[in-house]
Amino acid sequence: MHATKQRLIGAGLPLLLKHGYNDLGLQALLADTGTPKGSFYHHFRDKEDYALQVVDAYMAQVHAGLDACLGDSTKDPLVRVRSFFEMVQQSYQVEGYMGCLLGGLGQELSGISDVFRQKIEGCLSVIAQNLAGCLTEAVVLGQIAADTDVRRLADLLVNCWEGAALRSRLRRSPSSLDEMLDFYFRAVRVADR
Amino acid sequence: MHATKQRLIGAGLPLLLKHGYNDLGLQALLADTGTPKGSFYHHFRDKEDYALQVVDAYMAQVHAGLDACLGDSTKDPLVRVRSFFEMVQQSYQVEGYMGCLLGGLGQELSGISDVFRQKIEGCLSVIAQNLAGCLTEAVVLGQIAADTDVRRLADLLVNCWEGAALRSRLRRSPSSLDEMLDFYFRAVRVADR
Repeated sequence: MHATKQRLIGAGLPLLLKHGYNDLGLQALLADTGTPKGSFYHHFRDKEDYALQVVDAYMAQVHAGLDACLGDSTKDPLVRVRSFFEMVQQSYQVEGYMGCLLGGLGQELSGISDVFRQKIEGCLSVIAQNLAGCLTEAVVLGQIAADTDVRRLADLLVNCWEGAALRSRLRRSPSSLDEMLDFYFRAVRVADR
Repeated sequence: MHATKQRLIGAGLPLLLKHGYNDLGLQALLADTGTPKGSFYHHFRDKEDYALQVVDAYMAQVHAGLDACLGDSTKDPLVRVRSFFEMVQQSYQVEGYMGCLLGGLGQELSGISDVFRQKIEGCLSVIAQNLAGCLTEAVVLGQIAADTDVRRLADLLVNCWEGAALRSRLRRSPSSLDEMLDFYFRAVRVADR
């Protein structure tokens, strides 16, 4: 990827996390990154195209994290699922607990843009799909109930996480994240007692 | 309340749910409600003041719902807590599953406005405080574990609901809301087994 494009996309995550989409001015982005306007439009069709590509870059990180955390089949599958969210939580900490880019853009834009609505739904859905694979292993091991709809349980986890991430953004604090994970994994593990 | 002010505030909930804050143009609001510009500024200091008063009106509805659902101490306290969220879900249905105003404004604005960040955190916190009273009754009845931190459990419920509401907004569908409530109440009830 061209260095300028990479710089613009790299600047996009913290800026979109802070400002959201509509409050993010292109002028501010160009000034922050020392990019001439023409150069921006060489790499991106418009602001929407830019934000969607920032989401793609974010999802590339998420997929790397999913692969790193979920891939080691010698480890307890529920521990692997939790480790993914703990990794995400560490990145929230680095960012100052600004919450989740997907939740932020999904909330702000899904009332007015079917493009973003479907994009963000697709991102959350593919994360849940990955997690469901690991939850299936937990079912096979008898750690969660045999009749569990793992895909629903994975979507539920993603959704509850998004709510906890919103609260962490409001409070600039991780406590809601820890408490949600504790609650979820305690509940899931006892579901077949 | 002056009829014009009431009309503007009444129009605010669906408009803010759809557009969010930054995408909501005052011109559109004035045109939608047939209000002259000067009249708006007679009743509201600015757009921020307006949106905060829409949140206050929304919270007045929420408090009425909390009182109606939680107040009847002859009913099972966990059933009362659930009935509050089922009432909220019915209003989401009427609105076409656009999610929660508090979650929407909280996500969009808490990165750039401490006024909204503290306002929305305060709203979620007071809802959780009300729910915690009912959860305490459930503890007394032995329905949930005696050593439960009911305030945390109430915050967790509010947070998970917000995440489910985001997903309902992305999908324009209630399934995430039902599934979250089923999961939560099943988990809470079995917590002391």
